[in-house]
Amino acid sequence: MWKTVAIVGVGLIGGSIGLALRERKLAENVIGIGRRTSTLRKARDVGAVTSTTLRLEQGVASADLIVVATPVDQIAENVRQAVAHCPAGALITDAGSTKSQIVRTLHETLPPTTRFVGSHPLAGSEKNGPAAAAANLFEGRVVVVTPRRNGPGDVAAAVADFWSALGATVFLMSPEAHDEVIAATSHLPHLIASLVAQATPREDLPLAASGWQDTTRIAAGDPQLWTQILLDNRANVLKALGRFEKSLGRVRTALERGESKPLAKLLTEAKAIRDALQT
Amino acid sequence: MWKTVAIVGVGLIGGSIGLALRERKLAENVIGIGRRTSTLRKARDVGAVTSTTLRLEQGVASADLIVVATPVDQIAENVRQAVAHCPAGALITDAGSTKSQIVRTLHETLPPTTRFVGSHPLAGSEKNGPAAAAANLFEGRVVVVTPRRNGPGDVAAAVADFWSALGATVFLMSPEAHDEVIAATSHLPHLIASLVAQATPREDLPLAASGWQDTTRIAAGDPQLWTQILLDNRANVLKALGRFEKSLGRVRTALERGESKPLAKLLTEAKAIRDALQT
Repeated sequence: MWKTVAIVGVGLIGGSIGLALRERKLAENVIGIGRRTSTLRKARDVGAVTSTTLRLEQGVASADLIVVATPVDQIAENVRQAVAHCPAGALITDAGSTKSQIVRTLHETLPPTTRFVGSHPLAGSEKNGPAAAAANLFEGRVVVVTPRRNGPGDVAAAVADFWSALGATVFLMSPEAHDEVIAATSHLPHLIASLVAQATPREDLPLAASGWQDTTRIAAGDPQLWTQILLDNRANVLKALGRFEKSLGRVRTALERGESKPLAKLLTEAKAIRDALQT
Repeated sequence: MWKTVAIVGVGLIGGSIGLALRERKLAENVIGIGRRTSTLRKARDVGAVTSTTLRLEQGVASADLIVVATPVDQIAENVRQAVAHCPAGALITDAGSTKSQIVRTLHETLPPTTRFVGSHPLAGSEKNGPAAAAANLFEGRVVVVTPRRNGPGDVAAAVADFWSALGATVFLMSPEAHDEVIAATSHLPHLIASLVAQATPREDLPLAASGWQDTTRIAAGDPQLWTQILLDNRANVLKALGRFEKSLGRVRTALERGESKPLAKLLTEAKAIRDALQT
């Protein structure tokens, strides 16, 4: 399907893309690009890439598809570098958890012929690095592809085809709609899970059973990556946090007064939403 | 090990106790006591009990061990009824998620010769009823047994032996210490998971991936059961909530100001606590 795919950043997501491309025989060459030789070596060792380089400009020079899978605060710069050195007509996407700011920044500075559309595979994990990568990471998962309004439709379709080929279900949304929804379904839950973990006295952990373990699982994620994600999308995170705090205030009052009705109402509404998902 | 065990309330916990007793051949007779014939029938069908009755006074009449596995707001009354009708010397425990109020209430009203010590198996689930019961529910799980200060030590030891025989790891703690710890490791996480679910717009659910699913899993629990648990332990829940809110306030300020440092600090501390558990 592709002759040469360049993956910038071969961590969990980038490494899994490489593994999936190779297992599904979708690319002849998979070039891993990174900043640390140790990570690149591990990516080679697990079979995620066919060759590696520390130099982005070299790695993208003959690529027909480039996927930028670096932390959100590096994506725009990496895409800009890739555009400057890749063949004309190369398809470019990313795998960042936030979209508006990245897409806006790039749109303002890139040549209008650039074939870039942003993506967000909802396939994160509390694990990191190429050692945690898996060829089936995207199977049955959702990937949001985020074309700009009035952008070229064929580029979005080509990016959607790429993720579909890895086994994902693709949703198309504007970058702005993506960031608003994902604040509620991913960024706020991450922040709150971290607050629950941090509010737990260490000496109480022997009594932390499956409920605590499930609720706090994502708090094991990379603090630096998530600091950037939360800051990048802070307007939407604050909006979702506002809804959370409003209900929290009602619940606190009910607990202080010993009133069962507002508590039962909250728990019933929460169960209805949780049950609507059935997983 | 026991000739006749009476289980008051044959839901997930009571049903699992019956299944474990029978599979491990620890009891000749297991009598299921409940208020609904449909639940009792299901408990019989799954093999959790050898006989059933709607009348507690009859069910406990020949029991040498009685386990009260009803919702927390019914436990004290059920124990009182059991004590009034069971043979002298029968061992009695419960399976409630809160302990101080139940133990205090019972201590004030029961004859001093009563052989009751409270328990809390940390083996809850978002599932309910005898259909979800499993003989291995307690294997490798923690059960907290909560003797009163200056209470009879042999009764606590006998109750601890009972849970050990079902495969559990038993911790002995005072009822008050239990309630304080469990507020942080179970009750607050449940409340917060419910608030996260409830703050999620229903139309956003298609983008709720594994992070949201893990964080909100326990919000599918029974709203009535959990309303009673949260109210029963509200002083400790409010204390744990206070710690949570203090950090939340700092995080909100950091998001409003776009400051990365306080966010990174919170996420790093949270990860350290989560990683300390390693499950």
